[in-house]
Amino acid sequence: MRKSRLFTPGPTPVPEEVLLELARPVGYHRSAEAKATLAEVVRGLQYVLQTEQPVYVLTCSGTGAMEAAVSSVVAPGEKVILCTAGRWGERWRGILKAHGAELIAVEAPYGQAVTSDQLADALTHHPDAVAVYTTLCETSTGVGHDIAAFARLTAASSALLVVDGISGIGAMECRMDAWGIDVLVTGSQKALMMPPGLAYVAVSPKAWRKIEATPVRNFYFDLRRYRKALAEGPDTPFTPANTLIRAQRLALERLRAEGMEQVWARHARLAQATRTAVQALGLELFAQRPSNALTVIRVPAGVDGTGLLKKLEQHFGYKLADGQDTLKGKIWRLSHMGYVDPFDVLGAIAALELTLHSQGLAVPLGAGVAAFQREYARAQAL
Amino acid sequence: MRKSRLFTPGPTPVPEEVLLELARPVGYHRSAEAKATLAEVVRGLQYVLQTEQPVYVLTCSGTGAMEAAVSSVVAPGEKVILCTAGRWGERWRGILKAHGAELIAVEAPYGQAVTSDQLADALTHHPDAVAVYTTLCETSTGVGHDIAAFARLTAASSALLVVDGISGIGAMECRMDAWGIDVLVTGSQKALMMPPGLAYVAVSPKAWRKIEATPVRNFYFDLRRYRKALAEGPDTPFTPANTLIRAQRLALERLRAEGMEQVWARHARLAQATRTAVQALGLELFAQRPSNALTVIRVPAGVDGTGLLKKLEQHFGYKLADGQDTLKGKIWRLSHMGYVDPFDVLGAIAALELTLHSQGLAVPLGAGVAAFQREYARAQAL
Repeated sequence: MRKSRLFTPGPTPVPEEVLLELARPVGYHRSAEAKATLAEVVRGLQYVLQTEQPVYVLTCSGTGAMEAAVSSVVAPGEKVILCTAGRWGERWRGILKAHGAELIAVEAPYGQAVTSDQLADALTHHPDAVAVYTTLCETSTGVGHDIAAFARLTAASSALLVVDGISGIGAMECRMDAWGIDVLVTGSQKALMMPPGLAYVAVSPKAWRKIEATPVRNFYFDLRRYRKALAEGPDTPFTPANTLIRAQRLALERLRAEGMEQVWARHARLAQATRTAVQALGLELFAQRPSNALTVIRVPAGVDGTGLLKKLEQHFGYKLADGQDTLKGKIWRLSHMGYVDPFDVLGAIAALELTLHSQGLAVPLGAGVAAFQREYARAQAL
Repeated sequence: MRKSRLFTPGPTPVPEEVLLELARPVGYHRSAEAKATLAEVVRGLQYVLQTEQPVYVLTCSGTGAMEAAVSSVVAPGEKVILCTAGRWGERWRGILKAHGAELIAVEAPYGQAVTSDQLADALTHHPDAVAVYTTLCETSTGVGHDIAAFARLTAASSALLVVDGISGIGAMECRMDAWGIDVLVTGSQKALMMPPGLAYVAVSPKAWRKIEATPVRNFYFDLRRYRKALAEGPDTPFTPANTLIRAQRLALERLRAEGMEQVWARHARLAQATRTAVQALGLELFAQRPSNALTVIRVPAGVDGTGLLKKLEQHFGYKLADGQDTLKGKIWRLSHMGYVDPFDVLGAIAALELTLHSQGLAVPLGAGVAAFQREYARAQAL
């Protein structure tokens, strides 16, 4: 017997009752029941994003919602500041370039975070920038950005703050209204405990004023259509993945029942215990300002990082994620966001220890597990 | 006891084993297993669309795939011919306008089809048109277009033929390669027997030549990205709704096991028997060139069409679709595409008879059911 366990930073495990909900017969997406479900999902998302603004439900990958947050907001030739520290910052760059934005890139090396000082400089030098694009959690490196600090800077300027919160929302503290985020994007398949297929966009009044002044250049990702349909329905402008919406309602109910402060604290405990375990094994953390959504481990010199992950999966059923692009084989990414409890992560650490051990690396078996337990006991005051 | 039965022209009923597949734990979308599943889905879609061209899997509504078929194909200012006979032709118009196309509209009144003579005229007068956009099945009116005839005209010209086959594919004969369709779009939630959330686009070599010569103006709907990911993976360029892809594989297996000729013939029998039943009840068909995906009934003078549909659903659990926009209350739309058998439709006709009867209309109870049975027995040579 060998079970499969998913520790990739998206998709993530889905609670059993949410999976079962997906198997219920399909309904008509314009019925009163479907509208009531959508309204509940929007309220749940407002709570998760900590906003009173409506949240728009798009049927697409996170990248689609990111494109909506570009094409609706920025006209070709307008200047934007891009704070990028990894592959998902680069995704913003790709979309912004496709839509003709003039880009001012503020960069951090992979593994580090863009600082608020860097952003402050950029805003000073480019007072004509209409928006700042960045990521809450840079899933490719495990770095979390100080979005609260970024938002203090943009709030004092005319620029909007547009945040990719796809893998961060639900795993890291993020308060859209209190902090002053203008456009916040997230997706179903990370800490929101769902399969991929839905993405969400919330928009501040400041961002709406910019959107209203920006010529429409597309259709499916025109946020005006989502605003109109939600206000009039509540509805979506196009046939949505309605079985996913129905299931998202259940996953959001779990988050509300637990409470966002508790959800964030739970992720913080899991992340801290995981980082402690990794270091107890003599391994190095890759992210200098780590997110609580995932832990990224630097592959030790001389180890075939990609090969080891394959063995971890083949022998023990634990699926972690490799690095992407230039980081392939150089880092291991272990997600602890969403529907994950301490014993899930303990098992992953034990399996990692066994795999390192089987490769002849000098790993004290149980050292990571024990460190995880000690840190968890301390944090929980057990 | 009152069961709910879905007869809307999308979403449609989903086979039980496909629903159960949706409840299986979520996997990693870049695994070898996921790639093998995607490859199988692409082969299944090639069979359904009758094409040897690759079929691209997009996570979005049908409208998103339509936008991909516009933004990748037509540059702003280029001339296109739009053959439109209803709301979904108008959807093409909306997307084409958003992307700056110069539109030559070839129109038919709602309930009628654009003829190939009309298209021939338009092509003669506009030899500089780069593409013809139209619908296989105009779901808003129940009209089917003669796509084979349209394709003979475009094949002899430099223009591409781009077809919205969202509600037609799987219900009506459509042979992409043999007929010469250049871009064919469909969605998961119609005759492909799935929930909404996936859409599919197939592209001919003639269309690829045009796409390659057209500047990129967007990101998520850039078909080049889908071609590259499919060729290199097989993969999708962005995180797909992978639980839906896995389930679509099972639904496509059903179609392959039955055989497309048989699937089309089954829809033709159901549609013919339904039309016969409707007329036996003294009701009038709305579509002059009816599709086999759905039957559209003209609401008799003096009857509150919208109110009657509500009663049909409240009393008997049958959910048919109302007309949209200007047709609201004026037509009833009964879908028989996808996972629907004769006794499903018989029940819907019986429920419609009872509802008309309960409203004091002079309907001979059982007349529609008997006509359906007679026609079905004749077609099946029972």
